[in-house]
Amino acid sequence: MSFNTFGRAFRFTTWGESHGPALGVVIDGCPPGLELSEAKIQPFLDARRPGQSKYTTQRKEPDQVKILSGIFEGKTTGTPISLMIENVDQRSKDYSDVAKAYRPGHADYTYDAKYGFRDYRGGGRSSARETAARVAAGAVARLVVPEVSFAAYVCEIGGDAVDRGNFDSDEISRNPFFCPDAEAAKRWEQLVDDARKAGSSLGAVVECIASGVPAGWGAPVYAKMDSELAAAMMSINATKGVEIGDGFAAARLRGEENADAMRPGKGGSPEFLANHAGGTAGGIATGQPLVCRVAFKPTSSILTPVETITKDGEPAEIVTKGRHDPCVGIRGTPVVEAMMALVLADQKLLHRAQCG
Amino acid sequence: MSFNTFGRAFRFTTWGESHGPALGVVIDGCPPGLELSEAKIQPFLDARRPGQSKYTTQRKEPDQVKILSGIFEGKTTGTPISLMIENVDQRSKDYSDVAKAYRPGHADYTYDAKYGFRDYRGGGRSSARETAARVAAGAVARLVVPEVSFAAYVCEIGGDAVDRGNFDSDEISRNPFFCPDAEAAKRWEQLVDDARKAGSSLGAVVECIASGVPAGWGAPVYAKMDSELAAAMMSINATKGVEIGDGFAAARLRGEENADAMRPGKGGSPEFLANHAGGTAGGIATGQPLVCRVAFKPTSSILTPVETITKDGEPAEIVTKGRHDPCVGIRGTPVVEAMMALVLADQKLLHRAQCG
Amino acid sequence: MSFNTFGRAFRFTTWGESHGPALGVVIDGCPPGLELSEAKIQPFLDARRPGQSKYTTQRKEPDQVKILSGIFEGKTTGTPISLMIENVDQRSKDYSDVAKAYRPGHADYTYDAKYGFRDYRGGGRSSARETAARVAAGAVARLVVPEVSFAAYVCEIGGDAVDRGNFDSDEISRNPFFCPDAEAAKRWEQLVDDARKAGSSLGAVVECIASGVPAGWGAPVYAKMDSELAAAMMSINATKGVEIGDGFAAARLRGEENADAMRPGKGGSPEFLANHAGGTAGGIATGQPLVCRVAFKPTSSILTPVETITKDGEPAEIVTKGRHDPCVGIRGTPVVEAMMALVLADQKLLHRAQCG
Amino acid sequence: MSFNTFGRAFRFTTWGESHGPALGVVIDGCPPGLELSEAKIQPFLDARRPGQSKYTTQRKEPDQVKILSGIFEGKTTGTPISLMIENVDQRSKDYSDVAKAYRPGHADYTYDAKYGFRDYRGGGRSSARETAARVAAGAVARLVVPEVSFAAYVCEIGGDAVDRGNFDSDEISRNPFFCPDAEAAKRWEQLVDDARKAGSSLGAVVECIASGVPAGWGAPVYAKMDSELAAAMMSINATKGVEIGDGFAAARLRGEENADAMRPGKGGSPEFLANHAGGTAGGIATGQPLVCRVAFKPTSSILTPVETITKDGEPAEIVTKGRHDPCVGIRGTPVVEAMMALVLADQKLLHRAQCG
Repeated sequence: MSFNTFGRAFRFTTWGESHGPALGVVIDGCPPGLELSEAKIQPFLDARRPGQSKYTTQRKEPDQVKILSGIFEGKTTGTPISLMIENVDQRSKDYSDVAKAYRPGHADYTYDAKYGFRDYRGGGRSSARETAARVAAGAVARLVVPEVSFAAYVCEIGGDAVDRGNFDSDEISRNPFFCPDAEAAKRWEQLVDDARKAGSSLGAVVECIASGVPAGWGAPVYAKMDSELAAAMMSINATKGVEIGDGFAAARLRGEENADAMRPGKGGSPEFLANHAGGTAGGIATGQPLVCRVAFKPTSSILTPVETITKDGEPAEIVTKGRHDPCVGIRGTPVVEAMMALVLADQKLLHRAQCG
Repeated sequence: MSFNTFGRAFRFTTWGESHGPALGVVIDGCPPGLELSEAKIQPFLDARRPGQSKYTTQRKEPDQVKILSGIFEGKTTGTPISLMIENVDQRSKDYSDVAKAYRPGHADYTYDAKYGFRDYRGGGRSSARETAARVAAGAVARLVVPEVSFAAYVCEIGGDAVDRGNFDSDEISRNPFFCPDAEAAKRWEQLVDDARKAGSSLGAVVECIASGVPAGWGAPVYAKMDSELAAAMMSINATKGVEIGDGFAAARLRGEENADAMRPGKGGSPEFLANHAGGTAGGIATGQPLVCRVAFKPTSSILTPVETITKDGEPAEIVTKGRHDPCVGIRGTPVVEAMMALVLADQKLLHRAQCG
Repeated sequence: MSFNTFGRAFRFTTWGESHGPALGVVIDGCPPGLELSEAKIQPFLDARRPGQSKYTTQRKEPDQVKILSGIFEGKTTGTPISLMIENVDQRSKDYSDVAKAYRPGHADYTYDAKYGFRDYRGGGRSSARETAARVAAGAVARLVVPEVSFAAYVCEIGGDAVDRGNFDSDEISRNPFFCPDAEAAKRWEQLVDDARKAGSSLGAVVECIASGVPAGWGAPVYAKMDSELAAAMMSINATKGVEIGDGFAAARLRGEENADAMRPGKGGSPEFLANHAGGTAGGIATGQPLVCRVAFKPTSSILTPVETITKDGEPAEIVTKGRHDPCVGIRGTPVVEAMMALVLADQKLLHRAQCG
Repeated sequence: MSFNTFGRAFRFTTWGESHGPALGVVIDGCPPGLELSEAKIQPFLDARRPGQSKYTTQRKEPDQVKILSGIFEGKTTGTPISLMIENVDQRSKDYSDVAKAYRPGHADYTYDAKYGFRDYRGGGRSSARETAARVAAGAVARLVVPEVSFAAYVCEIGGDAVDRGNFDSDEISRNPFFCPDAEAAKRWEQLVDDARKAGSSLGAVVECIASGVPAGWGAPVYAKMDSELAAAMMSINATKGVEIGDGFAAARLRGEENADAMRPGKGGSPEFLANHAGGTAGGIATGQPLVCRVAFKPTSSILTPVETITKDGEPAEIVTKGRHDPCVGIRGTPVVEAMMALVLADQKLLHRAQCG
């Protein structure tokens, strides 16, 4: 069944297709009295916006957000906040290839298997344009958790990782890759451009850190902070893996290496001597930075011909022309950050529901 | 907020602590008319049961399940199925150490931060005994999806991985590690026993494959098959990472390497030439085997003294005595399989709700 | 907490305020392949539209619906259907009275108590304009349950009830009161006009009958058909009571009078000799017509001055000028019908989720 | 689909059949630190317990509650609270009549229509024994809302109403009818006994008042206080109608009669001059007493033979022998009170989630 709503207390519902008139999101459960205007949302959309460098898709979308409800005199009222973004650059191209044959790695075949037919124009609902709505919602979520600061960045493209010794958070916004390592960013220019020119594509790993999350947010068992973050991240287009803290590397450590020892810290909070756990224990925030890492597969749209079948089960070959991101993980970075903000806004409200 | 329910259509709610009188699960939304008895559940609990080899905890729990409701004349009635497992071996030991000081990596500190106090006996609700209830529920879920077959196994312990060339599914139940590679199982005997004797612990990676999932199950956006599986797996105790298909390795592939090409297959279904995607595209099952991999951190309970603080913020050192799994990932294997069955039972019902 | 979503499988989320730029609804979980266009929704909105007779508010709203997503080539795709209705006639009047003092019976005081402030223009989110979104969603819900036919009508205004002997379903659309009794409709012209001219208002009772609901839809315990209908109806503005079947009158019957005896009927279904139960038993549909009755209080906006207090707690007197329905129950009729369709669409999908 | 869970933040899930070994409830989301023991729950179960007078069923059930989880050192821990009540007096009678033919007014036919078969022993899941679990949960809910006091009572049996002039809340616990009017209680002895002896049954109206609910609890639109209460009440066995405040009588008032005028009151809160609204406006509590009224139909189990059909569609006649309440509304009274407490506990947590 289609579930286009995420969250339990701070909830949002997205709608819209790649080539429809608009897309949007309705946010429900937002606390009242928060100062909100389009100007507070737009910068986050701008960061995700396509067509800003040759390393991303050339589709030109202004992604201008409009607030349609839930605000009065510049403040959230506690009622649903409806945000809309009009689609502008739905190039009227010939979709007969995609209509007929299934692009491997895309949702073409599976939508048909599920629904019997599909909106094939630009991928319809399966297009990553849906993530613009998440980024808009994420900008609202951030207002709910002013105590938290977020940093998302690409830490690996096509297997080429950043050097953590070069980490500079100021660098993230200075290059077109959300890369915190100036040297890696330099290398990636060539790497991504080569892939683009070859009609190929690259995968990426995105990391997001949330600092300032109070110890106690989160929950045991099926709403563990880890579980909610994993669900959030794996709902983003093209993601295939998620880790909290050391993640898969923790499976290679011994117990004594993996222990995050504690000492008395300031203000009654413990000082942790390590953060292998990535800021959670038993599903609940420890007060350390939350660390989440997400794997993006290479964009499935490539110019190399791939063997496939048609709707009618005939053999075919397909080449995905059109405007595509050579590395979808790059523009996935603001989306990862938005999803983390959305999870934390929800967790904050849930925590105070139960614990006051 | 505490959320002890998982699922949307096929839903289950677990309850119980490590040292309470019992633990259990209530399953709601189960289709009527399925043949069910304790005998259909017990083998799965037995597979997860502690104390069966020296490689797992020595706590002796028979884990006998009782069906308290939802069955009439040997069949599910469509009303809630209540399953209960009594705790038998809650050794009355001295918990004063754990009551006073926080064990790093455990939920001791975070439960106190969230709830103000905690049931410190055996970890209370944060104990992995909760997973017995999931395994019991999973046995019911399997009846809902008879078209699907499951295989979960450990593919890596302490960084020592199986050789996929040696894969033999019959081997999984022949060794105490759920290991599909007889040679690796041999090596792990020494590896795990050494860790146990040293009072240390090891992490593990568990893989689960579900075959027979029809194309079309799953959903776009926030109930993606990938997203539901990720949430399910990351809600299991000690998990820190989850992958679908190639997972993080996909982030290192190029688009043309990662494409799962299709050919006309039998019965109208496509024949796929690869399964990098792990059986999903756009969040919906492709009909290929679903492949999910889960990282378990090393057990946090170790005999090596670790620096920590007391409830009152004083410095302390803690050693976790008692009966513990040297590698919690081993007994996590039946839990991973159960969670996959629970997700698929839910997805099957959700699919037919929307698509008939 | 704000919950602007209704339904479990067929779900909809409404948004918008009386004086914002627009209002709308996002429908999620709708089955694919249903023929849908604006033309299939508009007639239901037209039935609820204000300003059509002197017996309803004079606000002029065309209530033109736009479909923004979820449709391809004239059919639902299974993805969210976003519907939008622009507000046109938000007369820029002086709201300083309402901004300062609380109108008794309105949500003015309670919104302030809950949220700390409120959008006072036309009642903001508490305005019955929200129900236009429900009516639009209801038009889609009807497509999901083509086996069901609906008839909603006013059976009582200001204590003056229809004569059931005069019941004529064709009459309902012939008068401005949705009245199935031509004689009562005649009387109500005077009754409602007198109230309007006096600056007073009247309550009403609306009845809705759904025929063709298959035996088996609905569920035991907390999703009883009765319970879902009650929740749906009591979420409509100005409702204060709901009955299924004989309702409160059943409390005055003896067991043998209330029994709906059965005889063998056609096609294996029973023939019922009465329908005191209103089409449900144990929360599940019997196959008889579902009968639901809803009480609407008199419109709270009246020209008679009422004692009240200001935002600052000072004594005041208030008169609600502006354009109001003298009997809000009249235009509530299409809303009741829409909510019944929405509940049944949900119940149909839920039934097939569990029972196939 | 079966939904045996109620609530959004304070949630409970019930399970169990009339003739199974036990029934119970799992409460999730309960705040931590509340003092709870069996002794705090038992008195409420005792009030609902059958067999205490000749006016209720003669089934003898001690209804002893056991707490299986969620409590440590006498306090709620914030984790699920599992409560169990064993069934003791499942008289082993001959159910062949009920197994074969459908009792009109019962869920026999509809369960078969939905699920294909049913547990016919004592009505299975459709038995009002399920309400014992609600009463137990309600006792926990009361601890969450210590600021609220509750009074539920029968105000009408078989059409014979109490005289509100005789209202004495102390009287409620002094007679076997939960009747606040000593004179009516006197009359009802004869009335109910006559019905019992005649093998007939009577309906009833139960009213519940919650005092001390702070202004601001509740929510606009689909989680209106009115809507949640209506859903809660209409999920109780044998209920057919629900009213808030004046309910259906409000539909006969004029706007000026129905207005709850306000004056400056103590402590900044308004003093209301009437409470036609029953304590809500726009779905949100006004701070006045919440007033809810519920119609119970006469017990469907009667000794008068009723025409019916068998499972195979053959004509038959049925008489419901066995132990039954001649007026199920009487023992419904503690259930109504419990449901009101459960709704308010949920609303309190939801309010502080959104509004802090």
